[in-house]
Amino acid sequence: MKKLFIVKIGGNVIDDQTALQKFLTDFSKVRERKILVHGGGKTANELAQKLGVSQAMVNGRRITDAETLKITTMVYAGWLNKQIVALLQSNGVNAIGLSGADLNVIKTKKRENAEVDFGFVGDIVKDGVNAELIASQIESKITPVFCSVTHNGNGQLLNTNADTIASALAIALSKRYDVQLNFCFEKKGVMKSVEDESSLIETITKTEYKKLVREGIISKGMIPKLDNSFEAINKGVKKVVIGHFEKLNEIIGNRKSCGTVLTA
Amino acid sequence: MKKLFIVKIGGNVIDDQTALQKFLTDFSKVRERKILVHGGGKTANELAQKLGVSQAMVNGRRITDAETLKITTMVYAGWLNKQIVALLQSNGVNAIGLSGADLNVIKTKKRENAEVDFGFVGDIVKDGVNAELIASQIESKITPVFCSVTHNGNGQLLNTNADTIASALAIALSKRYDVQLNFCFEKKGVMKSVEDESSLIETITKTEYKKLVREGIISKGMIPKLDNSFEAINKGVKKVVIGHFEKLNEIIGNRKSCGTVLTA
Repeated sequence: MKKLFIVKIGGNVIDDQTALQKFLTDFSKVRERKILVHGGGKTANELAQKLGVSQAMVNGRRITDAETLKITTMVYAGWLNKQIVALLQSNGVNAIGLSGADLNVIKTKKRENAEVDFGFVGDIVKDGVNAELIASQIESKITPVFCSVTHNGNGQLLNTNADTIASALAIALSKRYDVQLNFCFEKKGVMKSVEDESSLIETITKTEYKKLVREGIISKGMIPKLDNSFEAINKGVKKVVIGHFEKLNEIIGNRKSCGTVLTA
Repeated sequence: MKKLFIVKIGGNVIDDQTALQKFLTDFSKVRERKILVHGGGKTANELAQKLGVSQAMVNGRRITDAETLKITTMVYAGWLNKQIVALLQSNGVNAIGLSGADLNVIKTKKRENAEVDFGFVGDIVKDGVNAELIASQIESKITPVFCSVTHNGNGQLLNTNADTIASALAIALSKRYDVQLNFCFEKKGVMKSVEDESSLIETITKTEYKKLVREGIISKGMIPKLDNSFEAINKGVKKVVIGHFEKLNEIIGNRKSCGTVLTA
């Protein structure tokens, strides 16, 4: 099977124009088939603050009300997505920016929860990723760039977690490609101790993961990302790497100490 | 040649959710190949006002500074474009939202003017429309939805007039298709007298147009739209119709009194 790299970027790199440009230059050097998924950074929060839209929280979880959905759609699908696409085009990558609504590539449904109404947040439905259409774009030498906005098929836009989108794309495309999923952020990878720069865990298998969680070594914040990753591996994705956004070419080149490599 | 309808909407319909939904339902009923181009409406101005970004004007013309470019990209490429795409998808139209940067479909360059720096405003360069790529999307039963944001190929996003984009698309695609270009707005068409609802001019030829301008019958505001339209006709577009957004199906169906029909 042909190799496909799915790269998710999030966090600080999105907000730092210099870091973003450097990252996109590295991403442009990836010669294989590739997909980029981006999160939001702080721009949406800053815009909400400026507009006086308060970010409602229930039990410590953010609620996406109508105004917040508008803000995130403007920032993620508009400003960030088009900036990234324009920068990739300037590097010779034929990028196309996509929300889940475009070409109906990712269909979600509003999250149902008996206790909390999360508002306009969507979870990807079964067979919600249109792998055939995405593959046909990729085979036309197009590089899709996904933002974290989707739709429910009935005209409603919904916010969807970018890590989840990256995993779902990886799983859906693993029937056609040898998929490597890369989560790039501002840390070296999964650390035994967040404070200790030398405590990078270079590889984790499924069995080791369970043990690390049991022993309380893996920090709480990393658990959703790792759960997502191992679910992807269970469902056909060959390899997941969690690493620093400055190390993308090392991650792609499969070099040593490029981050944390997760395998079955 | 196969028929292609290019429809541009702008003005009030964009700001009125009910009118927009009705218009998109009508647009969805167009069975032939089609492209939608949308302007911005008042949302961007309102957002600028809320954010305290003043709209700089020089000699009565708007200047797009960096903050204004960010706002228009958020509103046009983000909120409006994705809303329209999601609504079209809910009507069974396989829409894809595109800025000029996506797939490098429309390349522009920053407007040069010795007297006034218009800021981040782009004029379409020669052969700047990638007709081949757009045609290949259309032939895959995809309906492109263009917003009025483009790029210069060097990573810079630029604002570009939506009427101009519609004309340029029509011209570029007229080599492959029998193109009809439709400008839909909140008036019945070109009127002899703006106040008189019964003064619709049903057809205008190139020669008649010159006469109407000479006689001062066509109002100043309509001249750029008509100049654009006749340029399109000069360069291969079969027919241009200027009409009310509520009359789209009449315009497409070529019915009488559907607006102002422009021909060579």
